[in-house]
Amino acid sequence: MENIGYYNGTFAPMEQLMIPALDRGVYFGDGVYEALRVERHRFFALKEHLSRFRASLDFLRIPFAMTDEALTEILQEAASRVDSDSQQLYFQVTRGTSTRTHSFPEGVEPNLMILSRAVPLADLVEYRRVVVLPDTRWGHCNIKSLNLIPGVLAAQIAKERGCSEAVFHREGVVSECSSSNLLMLKGGVLRTAPADERILPGVTRGHFLMLAQQLNIPVDETAFSLEEMMAADELMITSTSAHGLPVGFVDDKPVCGRDKTLLRRLQMVYREFFWDSVGKD
Amino acid sequence: MENIGYYNGTFAPMEQLMIPALDRGVYFGDGVYEALRVERHRFFALKEHLSRFRASLDFLRIPFAMTDEALTEILQEAASRVDSDSQQLYFQVTRGTSTRTHSFPEGVEPNLMILSRAVPLADLVEYRRVVVLPDTRWGHCNIKSLNLIPGVLAAQIAKERGCSEAVFHREGVVSECSSSNLLMLKGGVLRTAPADERILPGVTRGHFLMLAQQLNIPVDETAFSLEEMMAADELMITSTSAHGLPVGFVDDKPVCGRDKTLLRRLQMVYREFFWDSVGKD
Repeated sequence: MENIGYYNGTFAPMEQLMIPALDRGVYFGDGVYEALRVERHRFFALKEHLSRFRASLDFLRIPFAMTDEALTEILQEAASRVDSDSQQLYFQVTRGTSTRTHSFPEGVEPNLMILSRAVPLADLVEYRRVVVLPDTRWGHCNIKSLNLIPGVLAAQIAKERGCSEAVFHREGVVSECSSSNLLMLKGGVLRTAPADERILPGVTRGHFLMLAQQLNIPVDETAFSLEEMMAADELMITSTSAHGLPVGFVDDKPVCGRDKTLLRRLQMVYREFFWDSVGKD
Repeated sequence: MENIGYYNGTFAPMEQLMIPALDRGVYFGDGVYEALRVERHRFFALKEHLSRFRASLDFLRIPFAMTDEALTEILQEAASRVDSDSQQLYFQVTRGTSTRTHSFPEGVEPNLMILSRAVPLADLVEYRRVVVLPDTRWGHCNIKSLNLIPGVLAAQIAKERGCSEAVFHREGVVSECSSSNLLMLKGGVLRTAPADERILPGVTRGHFLMLAQQLNIPVDETAFSLEEMMAADELMITSTSAHGLPVGFVDDKPVCGRDKTLLRRLQMVYREFFWDSVGKD
């Protein structure tokens, strides 16, 4: 099949999948999610994603009782129904289905929904354009919740301005992008905002930092300012499907292109690690 | 019927109502809502709610083309299907149904969902307990969006501590409650946080301020601190179904009860205005 949807035991093409209007995801966004790369029907970094998923569930206090093993089996079943060798599999868990009352309903089970479809890995060569926007999100950006309006609005502004991403800042300090992390190369150092409540601790971000350390490239987890960003040697966008996309323009001003060697080296080392991991799973 | 659900032209009991999994409300919370009192099948303050609803749609840039007249007709039809003489009618509009991509999808229509059921007006006599929590919400709390996780978590903490509501503060300055506004009486003055981006401009809040001015009770739209709150003569919780609920305990400490005359006067004047308006509609 071209794509698949799943909800609490039922599989259907995602366009035909129906869910109850009283799922608390529908009117509160009361749930969490993850997005996984599936290459040749094998998951990349499943363990890391499941670990972050559990942390998000804990923060929201959603008692999702399914074991990682049982969940993995369903995710695998969903992925296997899609023909593509290069998918992005999305899954979300909401608190349950109930009449609309803010406090937690009693005696309900969390709902599991899965969507998977072909999504190619993003090209690593082309230098991207980004737009800078104020970060007006809530105080827990480390949680991968379904409350994503700020990301939606920022992504749309980026698109309208011919950009691939929006870079968020709080009072001049860069946090991350609308749905990805931002890494900087400067003087041979790999720098990015620390994994606190202002950013989503990206799995790809974590792997880039780990690989850099293995290569004896100094790593600095200190947030950088907009001014420092403009003076970067290189900037890289990382997410599940964006393996270090170079940035060449910020708000239409040319930036970066000053350390292509290190940029390409990190991209290559990451891709090697990625394909090795998928193969080994 | 006991309750009703509606989605894009279809009516069903809300427990049976189904919606597409690809409604952007489901995975982004990409929509806005309103909640209306319906007394004897007549709406209270419909015009004010529709005006705020349009402002929320504008902020999210959701092109909901239905006129207020056409929307009102559907809301009225939904309300008329519920037997109760005292309902709360909820309606939400999401950006549309599409594959999950952050930027706005093209060529889709917004989705309208309605839920209505019997909800009594809250009792005005009993002094309520509240808990104080940090306000970690986003920077646009004036928008009535579907991204409501902070309100959900706060309401649950309040419930667990035997409280009716949670009072949010940012660095010691009170904004509002988890799903209502907070008004203070002190020295005969009615005071509440200004209608900026830190609070939802409640319709009931607005009416209380208007009525106070008509009664020559001084009104002060300046945010108050937690310390000022603890020293209040009276505190009142206002929302669509909460017409000035008195607060008697904050984090288990006794407060208020020092100006019951003015409290009861305002409650009574509001209720009279409420019933007059419903009758006149």
